[in-house]
Amino acid sequence: MEVKDLTGKASQVSWKAKKSVALSGVVAGSTALCAVGRSGNDLHYRGYDILDLATQCEFEEVAYLLLYGKLPNREELTAYKQRLRAMKRLPAPVRSVLEQVPAGAHPMDVMRIGVSALATIEPEAKPYNVDSARRVADRLLASLAPMLLYWHHFTVNGKRIETTLEADSIADHFLRLLHGNSAPENWVHALQVSLILYAEHEFNASTFTARVIAGTDSDVYSAVAGAIGALKGPKHGGANEVALEIQQRYGSPDEAEQDVRVRVERKDVIIGFGHPVYAISDPRNVVIKNIARKLSECNGDKLLFAVAERLENVMFSVKKMFPNLDWFSAVAYHCMGIPTAMFTPIFVIARTSGWCAHIIEQRQDGKIIRPSAIYTGPENLPFIAIAERR
Amino acid sequence: MEVKDLTGKASQVSWKAKKSVALSGVVAGSTALCAVGRSGNDLHYRGYDILDLATQCEFEEVAYLLLYGKLPNREELTAYKQRLRAMKRLPAPVRSVLEQVPAGAHPMDVMRIGVSALATIEPEAKPYNVDSARRVADRLLASLAPMLLYWHHFTVNGKRIETTLEADSIADHFLRLLHGNSAPENWVHALQVSLILYAEHEFNASTFTARVIAGTDSDVYSAVAGAIGALKGPKHGGANEVALEIQQRYGSPDEAEQDVRVRVERKDVIIGFGHPVYAISDPRNVVIKNIARKLSECNGDKLLFAVAERLENVMFSVKKMFPNLDWFSAVAYHCMGIPTAMFTPIFVIARTSGWCAHIIEQRQDGKIIRPSAIYTGPENLPFIAIAERR
Repeated sequence: MEVKDLTGKASQVSWKAKKSVALSGVVAGSTALCAVGRSGNDLHYRGYDILDLATQCEFEEVAYLLLYGKLPNREELTAYKQRLRAMKRLPAPVRSVLEQVPAGAHPMDVMRIGVSALATIEPEAKPYNVDSARRVADRLLASLAPMLLYWHHFTVNGKRIETTLEADSIADHFLRLLHGNSAPENWVHALQVSLILYAEHEFNASTFTARVIAGTDSDVYSAVAGAIGALKGPKHGGANEVALEIQQRYGSPDEAEQDVRVRVERKDVIIGFGHPVYAISDPRNVVIKNIARKLSECNGDKLLFAVAERLENVMFSVKKMFPNLDWFSAVAYHCMGIPTAMFTPIFVIARTSGWCAHIIEQRQDGKIIRPSAIYTGPENLPFIAIAERR
Repeated sequence: MEVKDLTGKASQVSWKAKKSVALSGVVAGSTALCAVGRSGNDLHYRGYDILDLATQCEFEEVAYLLLYGKLPNREELTAYKQRLRAMKRLPAPVRSVLEQVPAGAHPMDVMRIGVSALATIEPEAKPYNVDSARRVADRLLASLAPMLLYWHHFTVNGKRIETTLEADSIADHFLRLLHGNSAPENWVHALQVSLILYAEHEFNASTFTARVIAGTDSDVYSAVAGAIGALKGPKHGGANEVALEIQQRYGSPDEAEQDVRVRVERKDVIIGFGHPVYAISDPRNVVIKNIARKLSECNGDKLLFAVAERLENVMFSVKKMFPNLDWFSAVAYHCMGIPTAMFTPIFVIARTSGWCAHIIEQRQDGKIIRPSAIYTGPENLPFIAIAERR
């Protein structure tokens, strides 16, 4: 179909506007960060194919590409990682705030309260510009895993962990903070790849939230806190948690196939399949599936992968539907011993790079985002004084 | 101009799509809550004229209208106010969180951290539906002033105030919490009117933020926390604070007129004037101006009002621009001894009623909001290994 911007300039995309999606196919702005769904199964970050980035980069390279506009050379990457490592200490009031959050809280709510607390301690420097935004972006990239895992260990184990422990990368840091010791190299690599795949995806609902907030000239923390709330929704980031629940229901691939055929027959939605802007397949699936397979083989427990792969085949043969990134991400995360409730928070860590790059773009664009509504209510009701109301 | 929804159904509005506004005039959904800008200076909540509501209702009646779908009769209003009064206690962990927020923090950040903390202590009950949304909406309406003013007195005076003190209404409660004693009746009335005027305004940026977040099936707290971040921006809710700064610059109406004529000449933007969806005037201005005049007369200090009124006349004669709601709200709040930094938080208290009513509508609509972007970046860049990058 053809997508037109407000000046009439047209782009071709392979997908069709969906009735279940508001503003589907309606252009809300421009971006140089991401092109998606034009051929049916393509994704590019700043012009680079996701398959190259995911197989040949570290997450920090991709975050740098999104936030600073180019792939870093060796010196720039080393300096950037060093800067991020120096930013992982949580201020004492942020730790105190996290200690007030009960064990049963939703980890996405923990992420938002952590971000909101940091905003009050280290607010974005004024005047807000590209530099102040990058500084907050980097601080958040370095601090999100510490926020989540400080709270986790405090509420689960009653332990105040040291979040500044030595780690080479954000992925490495996350796994060390979670497991309390150094993680196998293939896990760190797997998490790197996953963070790259989740980093950016054009005007998805959480990124669009961040852009609407940034459009009022608000600060980066406000935009990211809003985006976290959008990503929490089961129609958005919450999907990878549901994917695992589905996969864990079954004792064998045959049992899974039989049950899902019945569910498809009665028109149940199977989370983890299909995508609003891919017509042929999710280009990220081949990468994360490969990662999930290797982790499963290493672990010696192949059931979950086998179930997931069988359901991939069933869904394609019965419904011509393909798995999206969430489907095999769930398998991969489970193999690394990551609690299910942390799947969407990992998505936050990854997508913060994309969110902040979009916030910078929206600032440069300088527009407030303010659509219209069709009014469907009653017209010109006569006012009735309270004493006469029924 | 004509505004069309995606099915082609058309509505007439009097304003023109603006280049400085993304999605201006583009329909992003439907609402039965609010019609605005169709004749040039009209605003209706659920079919009732804002002038009737603002001059004959309490804020709680209007919140009830927005959230529960009808104007309450006497018994319903009494019961509703009683329910809100019973909800104003802040849980101990929320108070502890607020105590961690430094005195210099932005009060809008305080509001968001308070909302985020309450979300972790009293999360929205599942399954999310209209009832669970209303319950959180009411809890927030009752708790927002306590959050702001608990923090205020703790950081400014080192005092842990009791937020449950007896008060008839949300406006009364706010003023008592702020000043520590019962407020004059005309102040309570003035704040009531202001809350009504600020309660709802169709798909403005913060409400649209709340709807985008709600569209992913996320919870009410997430949507409100996001909306607070959008309202914080100086292009949105932050405007009433800037309005006061402008008015306080001058020692006399003549001085104000002279200076503003110069500023208009050199094309400065004067905050507090004009509006994206009103062509003729802001219908709320006549009400709030009247309130501001009366408060000024009572206070015996008419300078601020006189400056504001003179600038209203100057801006109309020179630029044909009219003051929006923010302009005389600033005068009114200042007369009641409300610190400037609390102007936008009061907007939050008011608009929470509208935000939550829109969140309920978006849930009922069932759609995720996911627009498209025009890609403006480079195409198909060849990947370069890190060792070979410049």
